Amino acid sequence: MGEAQDTKPGASAGTRDMANAIRALAMDAVQKANSGHPGMPMGMADVATVLFTEALRFDPADPDWPDRDRFVLSAGHGSMLLYSLLYLTGYPGMDIGQLENFRQLGSKTAGHPEFGHAAGIETTTGPLGQGIANAVGMALAERLLNARLGDDLVDHRIYCLAGDGCLMEGISHEAISLAGHLGLGRLIVMWDDNSISIDGPTDLSVSDDQVARFAASGWNTLRIDGHDPAAISAALKTARADASKPWLIACRTVIGYGAPTKAGKSSTHGEPLGVEEIAGTREKLGWSAAPFEIPDAILGAWRALGARGADENAAWKARFAKASPESKALLDAPAAASRKGALADAIAAAKAQFAADETKRATRVWSQLTLEHLVPALPELLGGSADLTPSNGTRTKHHTAVAPGSFAGNYIHYGVREHGMAAAMNGIALHGGFIPYGATFLVFTDYCRPSIRLSALMGQRVVYVMTHDSIGLGEDGPTHQPIEHLAALRAIPNLLVLRPADALETAEAWEIALGQEKRPSILALTRQAVPKFVRQGGVGANLSAKGAYVLSGGAKRDVTLLASGSEVGLAVEAAATLAKDGIGAAVVSMPSFELFRAQDQAYRDEVLGDAPRVAVEAAVAQGWHEWLRPGDRFIGLSDFGASAPAPKLFQHFGVTSGRVAEAARNVAAAAKKA
Amino acid sequence: MGEAQDTKPGASAGTRDMANAIRALAMDAVQKANSGHPGMPMGMADVATVLFTEALRFDPADPDWPDRDRFVLSAGHGSMLLYSLLYLTGYPGMDIGQLENFRQLGSKTAGHPEFGHAAGIETTTGPLGQGIANAVGMALAERLLNARLGDDLVDHRIYCLAGDGCLMEGISHEAISLAGHLGLGRLIVMWDDNSISIDGPTDLSVSDDQVARFAASGWNTLRIDGHDPAAISAALKTARADASKPWLIACRTVIGYGAPTKAGKSSTHGEPLGVEEIAGTREKLGWSAAPFEIPDAILGAWRALGARGADENAAWKARFAKASPESKALLDAPAAASRKGALADAIAAAKAQFAADETKRATRVWSQLTLEHLVPALPELLGGSADLTPSNGTRTKHHTAVAPGSFAGNYIHYGVREHGMAAAMNGIALHGGFIPYGATFLVFTDYCRPSIRLSALMGQRVVYVMTHDSIGLGEDGPTHQPIEHLAALRAIPNLLVLRPADALETAEAWEIALGQEKRPSILALTRQAVPKFVRQGGVGANLSAKGAYVLSGGAKRDVTLLASGSEVGLAVEAAATLAKDGIGAAVVSMPSFELFRAQDQAYRDEVLGDAPRVAVEAAVAQGWHEWLRPGDRFIGLSDFGASAPAPKLFQHFGVTSGRVAEAARNVAAAAKKA
Repeated sequence: MGEAQDTKPGASAGTRDMANAIRALAMDAVQKANSGHPGMPMGMADVATVLFTEALRFDPADPDWPDRDRFVLSAGHGSMLLYSLLYLTGYPGMDIGQLENFRQLGSKTAGHPEFGHAAGIETTTGPLGQGIANAVGMALAERLLNARLGDDLVDHRIYCLAGDGCLMEGISHEAISLAGHLGLGRLIVMWDDNSISIDGPTDLSVSDDQVARFAASGWNTLRIDGHDPAAISAALKTARADASKPWLIACRTVIGYGAPTKAGKSSTHGEPLGVEEIAGTREKLGWSAAPFEIPDAILGAWRALGARGADENAAWKARFAKASPESKALLDAPAAASRKGALADAIAAAKAQFAADETKRATRVWSQLTLEHLVPALPELLGGSADLTPSNGTRTKHHTAVAPGSFAGNYIHYGVREHGMAAAMNGIALHGGFIPYGATFLVFTDYCRPSIRLSALMGQRVVYVMTHDSIGLGEDGPTHQPIEHLAALRAIPNLLVLRPADALETAEAWEIALGQEKRPSILALTRQAVPKFVRQGGVGANLSAKGAYVLSGGAKRDVTLLASGSEVGLAVEAAATLAKDGIGAAVVSMPSFELFRAQDQAYRDEVLGDAPRVAVEAAVAQGWHEWLRPGDRFIGLSDFGASAPAPKLFQHFGVTSGRVAEAARNVAAAAKKA
Repeated sequence: MGEAQDTKPGASAGTRDMANAIRALAMDAVQKANSGHPGMPMGMADVATVLFTEALRFDPADPDWPDRDRFVLSAGHGSMLLYSLLYLTGYPGMDIGQLENFRQLGSKTAGHPEFGHAAGIETTTGPLGQGIANAVGMALAERLLNARLGDDLVDHRIYCLAGDGCLMEGISHEAISLAGHLGLGRLIVMWDDNSISIDGPTDLSVSDDQVARFAASGWNTLRIDGHDPAAISAALKTARADASKPWLIACRTVIGYGAPTKAGKSSTHGEPLGVEEIAGTREKLGWSAAPFEIPDAILGAWRALGARGADENAAWKARFAKASPESKALLDAPAAASRKGALADAIAAAKAQFAADETKRATRVWSQLTLEHLVPALPELLGGSADLTPSNGTRTKHHTAVAPGSFAGNYIHYGVREHGMAAAMNGIALHGGFIPYGATFLVFTDYCRPSIRLSALMGQRVVYVMTHDSIGLGEDGPTHQPIEHLAALRAIPNLLVLRPADALETAEAWEIALGQEKRPSILALTRQAVPKFVRQGGVGANLSAKGAYVLSGGAKRDVTLLASGSEVGLAVEAAATLAKDGIGAAVVSMPSFELFRAQDQAYRDEVLGDAPRVAVEAAVAQGWHEWLRPGDRFIGLSDFGASAPAPKLFQHFGVTSGRVAEAARNVAAAAKKA
């Protein structure tokens, strides 16, 4: 393992000094916080220094420059590497005080990089493997935009630093496999090959030949000494010269490089080095500056790096100024606002068409019919499915598939890779230029849940089209029937769960989802056909946007029936039955708990009413108790489903209009007695 | 691609006829059900026939024979392959009527194979990639048992049939990597390499060189024509002769083999072939028998196969009869019952020790101290962690790590592979001989949720040790802080979620979890130290087993405070504050909603009382409404966490004893007014 040496004669400070600045900041910030991960930043400091010095296209004065390179720290626990780089290169707001407040409440320097906390944080990382999969999405978005806008406007790379943990996670396989398949040559992954994980040496648990593994998935590969600046530099030049395939650069490093007794040990991974070890590190590295002090020459060398990007950015902006309005619109957030009209028009057209169509269809089919309007109207929509395209109804006649080396299309065959799809969609949304939607069965939200959570945490507009949303899926049986998934998804903060009941609500759900600029949405859609309802509130306004509304009845309200999705039909049937017995039932359709909760108390009281309530959903009760009081009833499921034709299952589990009506009679009678 | 030919001269029916029996049953059952997946069984019929004819060690008369080979259909949608094999070889209960009732309510022949529905179904499959990861767990359990009991009693193999979808899923990487690392040479995976997935040809979405990929993870590999019985036979001989590493046999096949116009197309994957195509298939295969009729000679050839296994089983039983009681105990379910005493004794010893220890510790530490008692007492306990051993506290001084080729240990370093760990634990539990427990942070239950769900669906005794169970995790920040996870896990049917509050409850949680013979458990444990409580019900009885109980107060009950885990301490503090104001508060500790729900109404009424209620949990409210009425209050979180030291976070988010006391005062006052 070579010692890092200066390789830039004439520079005011050498690569080694610049890298040591990262090491010092990392170890000192972790020590001050008494919490954090010094080992990774110290190990990857040389790689990061050469990357930023020679390769990365960035302009700290304009962190959102659309044609910047993206730097993704997949090994997010090494957050001090990123924060050090943002401080050293002069990103706005990342002053030394932020580093001194590492991991403290309200600082920009959270334990793991949090998107939105500071300029230059391209994505939230920490849950391992997510960053590399985000990077795949970004590298895909880059090529898709390039195919639309050309090299003059879109010509950048995605650099991703990943650790052993990232490569052990299953999501890395999905990401690597997809990137290799599509030939995402703008992606350069630098693997921190330090042979250490938390339990100890990685050989306790892993023996993969990672280079051979990546090669098997169609990647170019290189192995280098991650402490040899010349080797790092040469590798980056090689990788940048050949964009036919993605690159893995395996960087052999020493975790906690520079620490006299702890370097190379797992004890440097996730805890402060300690005062004594830090003193020894200073001595070993020849670093005499006090904590959080960077000598002027070294800081100056770092700060000077932005000039290259500033020039490139200026040239880019000159080209962008001459671009067509259509081109600008894809890169320009304000322009996107002007397309809200296009969204509203497309939805209005869909609703008009649906109003004239009396066919009973599944909401997944109504969703597909809605997309037939949306896709031509919104060029930023990027569709896809995790190998369930015909079942999910996500591909329209306006779609062309993206294929290896061919990026003019607007539909991604993500393969059987739910987790990789979701994380890639996060990367696509973060990159900008597209609103991604992707699909699988609702039950398989479990497979991509970590990435759905990150969509919500990062506030990204990603639309999850989740079909086959109950036992209505039928014969495929309990492994494929979501029972607890609506509850489990409704539990995630900042995630919008929409379960439309019919054609109208399905179109409205799409309008709501696409209008959420800072929130992901789940569309839970049926496999089975559902009726269309006569909505007493009329078809013009988007009533679904209130989360719940009185679909029918209410003039004489002896009981209120609450339902979502396919069970709204049961409530409507039950109300008809009850009417014959002289019991007045209001049917409340509840496509979204989150939106309903956000309404004012008066509206919620008006919708829910004072009458006894019966709720019905072909799922677990959890979550529904929020809308129910003692004495109210819930009709649903409390155990896993079964394999049979859907109508038999609804009968078998007692999720029927008859049981709703019976429960309604009982609660109404009990209320009368009381 | 060779045509399948007879290779067993002298057999009453040839391999080809035997394979065609599978094809006929599969296409006819799917047609009759008007639902299902004929393509895979027709494509893999030759591979399965040779496997069962020549290699698989099985005894249909004794499906639970511990030393049988395991046959895992990871591509579970091809369930008719398995059902056909079980019928043809004569497994009890799998009569032709079951095949005629494929996918119908109450049949043993669900859409996907369901463990427990029929003898010979080794695991529930369907969610892709789970089967191969279960198989890795089974192959590990086999070697672990072999190291304890020797070749005379444990000497079998795990055969797994996997499809393209299984290999695209991320979990396959975790499983393959772990198996390669440990050198699980008893595992033989036969990949149905048919180049077709649901969206169309696999080259729409995947280009991996799977053989190179498996080799990179330390597997032996072979490529064969999956329709050439001689090649299949030779490959199986090769694989069985070298158990130094796991084997991948890539079987090039034609999906829907035999169908005249649909073979090789994705249209054979997931729908009936249709009457005309089935007639054409009969003609092409030379199969003239009516649907669900197997000519005697062919059925006879299949039924004769069990004799080999019956002989082997008889010889094995003779050896088993001579084995030591300790050896028998590991293989013998009734013997396990006798260890209930050992469990009770170990827990009693732990509780006695804890009662004398006044140190404040995290429940993860109390868990580790409990394990110090349990591990020596219960030799079937198999520990592990997904690379968080020091944080999870899952390794005791009684543990030895399992290492490549060395299986005498009792602790698995699963690596950063939460999903693979959980699925492997399912395989280990299904295999028998061990009670597996495995650990990660609670937030990363998201990474293994599909396998946790299958633990619950299959009713397997798997214990998930999930530490760092709230914002009490502190500085690592929102990506690592579970907020919605308790709710999301409580939503899963048949999963026991246990969140103990102190030392005593932690020991009791382990006693409860290990006592669940047909249910997985999650232990949600704190990172931070918690107080020990004086329990008015005494320390002897396992009060946690009732799910909730009155920890303190209640003589004068003006308000009831409900809490779980680390927030019980806040409730106890609040009760002390309230007492000073003359407000009597009962503190109810609720370690498990599921167990409490299972108590009778009288007990639940007694515990919850009539007084106004305040619940507190450092998590979302969802789920708590079940125990609250209008006017009651919940103190918790409604958004993601933040990065800061834990005490600051509890303050910041208002999860404090002060807020609990304030809410209690308010609800008590409101109740007085009313």
